[in-house]
Amino acid sequence: MAQRLSAQAPDFEARFTELLSSKREVSEDVDHIVRDILEDVRKRGDAAVLEYTAKFDRLTVSSMEELRVSEEEIAAALQQVPQATIDALELARERIHAHHARQMPKDDRYTDPIGVELGSIWTAVEAVGLYVPGGLASYPSSVLMNAVPAKVAGVERIAMVVPSPDGVLNPQVLAAAHIAGVTEIYRVGGAQAVAALAYGTQTIAPVSKIVGPGNAFVAAAKRRVFGTVGIDMIAGPSEVLVIADSSANPEWIAADLLAQAEHDEVAQSILITDSADLANAVEVAVEGQLKTLPKADIAGASWRDFGAIIVVDDIEAAMPLSNRIAPEHLELAVADSEVLLKKVRNAGAVFIGAHTPEAIGDYVGGSNHVLPTARSARFSSGLSVLDFVKRTSILKCTADNLRQIGPSAVVLGEAEGLSGHARSVAIRLNL
Amino acid sequence: MAQRLSAQAPDFEARFTELLSSKREVSEDVDHIVRDILEDVRKRGDAAVLEYTAKFDRLTVSSMEELRVSEEEIAAALQQVPQATIDALELARERIHAHHARQMPKDDRYTDPIGVELGSIWTAVEAVGLYVPGGLASYPSSVLMNAVPAKVAGVERIAMVVPSPDGVLNPQVLAAAHIAGVTEIYRVGGAQAVAALAYGTQTIAPVSKIVGPGNAFVAAAKRRVFGTVGIDMIAGPSEVLVIADSSANPEWIAADLLAQAEHDEVAQSILITDSADLANAVEVAVEGQLKTLPKADIAGASWRDFGAIIVVDDIEAAMPLSNRIAPEHLELAVADSEVLLKKVRNAGAVFIGAHTPEAIGDYVGGSNHVLPTARSARFSSGLSVLDFVKRTSILKCTADNLRQIGPSAVVLGEAEGLSGHARSVAIRLNL
Repeated sequence: MAQRLSAQAPDFEARFTELLSSKREVSEDVDHIVRDILEDVRKRGDAAVLEYTAKFDRLTVSSMEELRVSEEEIAAALQQVPQATIDALELARERIHAHHARQMPKDDRYTDPIGVELGSIWTAVEAVGLYVPGGLASYPSSVLMNAVPAKVAGVERIAMVVPSPDGVLNPQVLAAAHIAGVTEIYRVGGAQAVAALAYGTQTIAPVSKIVGPGNAFVAAAKRRVFGTVGIDMIAGPSEVLVIADSSANPEWIAADLLAQAEHDEVAQSILITDSADLANAVEVAVEGQLKTLPKADIAGASWRDFGAIIVVDDIEAAMPLSNRIAPEHLELAVADSEVLLKKVRNAGAVFIGAHTPEAIGDYVGGSNHVLPTARSARFSSGLSVLDFVKRTSILKCTADNLRQIGPSAVVLGEAEGLSGHARSVAIRLNL
Repeated sequence: MAQRLSAQAPDFEARFTELLSSKREVSEDVDHIVRDILEDVRKRGDAAVLEYTAKFDRLTVSSMEELRVSEEEIAAALQQVPQATIDALELARERIHAHHARQMPKDDRYTDPIGVELGSIWTAVEAVGLYVPGGLASYPSSVLMNAVPAKVAGVERIAMVVPSPDGVLNPQVLAAAHIAGVTEIYRVGGAQAVAALAYGTQTIAPVSKIVGPGNAFVAAAKRRVFGTVGIDMIAGPSEVLVIADSSANPEWIAADLLAQAEHDEVAQSILITDSADLANAVEVAVEGQLKTLPKADIAGASWRDFGAIIVVDDIEAAMPLSNRIAPEHLELAVADSEVLLKKVRNAGAVFIGAHTPEAIGDYVGGSNHVLPTARSARFSSGLSVLDFVKRTSILKCTADNLRQIGPSAVVLGEAEGLSGHARSVAIRLNL
């Protein structure tokens, strides 16, 4: 059973601080292994990728061409996936596309009051690598959430890598790739896949940015290639904070807490409520639902070890706590959710009202499910079109403009001891 | 003298690729030292900061209070800085503010065709740490470029740290902080300052994000605290690419190349031109100007070791090369700059026309001078207001909406083996 905190208790601040700092990362020290793999792939290219794929995925082929997923395989995968799943993925793609299209930033070029032209021009990243995990955590929804914003941004080339342990690929993942318009797919995973994308090999052209979730090896590899290429965030275990008052249905809230908990034994589900009755009822409902949940072992461990119920006097007192937690997912299951929404400062995504379970956002809501974990919503945002574009700033002065503002640049250049800077302006002004 | 490449030469591609991959990073292995300092400050707080400050900056004080820069010191600094410099900093602040105000993203909340409410809400990062180097590279312009966008974003608290070796602080830096509205300033630097900002001490409250340039220790510390807090980019040595045709004044171009080169012996200045005459004239002009440049030693070494002049047949052939270089700064000193501008794909900032030397953008142009180095303009952008805000996505379904799209979420949850996800939707639909 999850721990219970009361905002009235004298030790509340101490316990809440402890909850905030609870270490949920499983830190595996794989960095030295990853360093060697990266270096080897950088030097030997395809040959190294083939060797690591044989070693780690028990998949032996004679050439990289065989690791590229063929059109026939994609067509076969589509046949294997039930039509209801295809339809659901199509709906998801369409809704994700529509929402993300609104995020596309607009170029801004203008002339300021003294006549200087300034601006910001946005361009898409030219080539993006998309990592998709193999095995159990190989989720088709994750393919859509990463690939669709890249497509909306105008990325010309998306190279997808997905390991196929013992040669097995999840057909749903290939179906999702097809639906998202991704055609360049390699059956490669781990640090060797990240290296191939970052440095390029004889067969795989290098990309400029790598996105997508992965295990400890993938995360360590992404950290190491950062700088050579861009990366998205390094995702930690998932988490949800539900703020609910007495209007909430305890069975629904329990289901939401368990939906998060089933991801991982180190996932975290927290309920904050002003109703002790709801707190008790949710506690009972969680135990009841665990009895029939297929992933009860995982969800039960997460709830027991990292779950928490916090009872506050007044529901508005939940918001400062929520902003300190900076949850990845925040559900506002209260009678007047708009009042609380105005006070949200740090949260990856907010799910409003009784009929918006977080899982809707995981699949078909339209917003992105790649969100900042581990309190990083204090300083970062979920994945969006902005992750696949970059801004070039523009400056254009006439001779008149330079006469007007140039002398100040000369003053500052000299003040900073950068006479060459000063001279590059002064020489144009005959100063 | 810089190397000369000709696009017509048979070995051009090989030499250009070599130029692209030239290693200009001075990699100092300070990571183990930094790790210990971070850990020590995290554990012992103020006491550790005081010890490291005594050790590294030769500044011994008895309490953290003494490391806080007082209002009197700031007032005294303002007296020491010439009025012309103050006026130039004021002009810079005003122009930076005006340009960055246009970057503030707008909230977007809307109802989609089936009635689901979606949205993106932007909020400022609550507290930002601003690192300012001490000693030679202590630039007032850098204080403005980092602090003003944070102010525009609505960041409530900016904590600035700046080392004062032997107790010496650059009064220009304090003046720039005052002009930017930064009032919380600590005379602390190095990894100990980054640790204090990231973890907090008894005196310094922790921040959510750390920005600003620094030496190898600061860069290593920022890499290590990334995740606990956000960081801006890790800046490499500066670089400029000038594309010029026969219309360009060779003395002006030479001054621009040297302005970049005087930053650092590993800075890089490249000229691409379709005019062999201009190439020759610039070469001569560089040698001439080096004779009177105060930082000739640095600029000369940079030009000799990393400078390059590339002669192409046609000026438009410069653009594919430019996009491969992905320069931090790109000057278009050509007769018809707009034609080339349309083809810019990867560049931090573009300076258009004969009267826009890059140094104008360093100081008073209004755009930011913190820009992506080392080819990272392929996937990242210069510092902007977006670095100081984060987006929360919003989703709100009615019971009707959930009936319409919920079943697809149930299908996908089950398809992914996440029955708890499926249940959290199904339970609301009585499925």
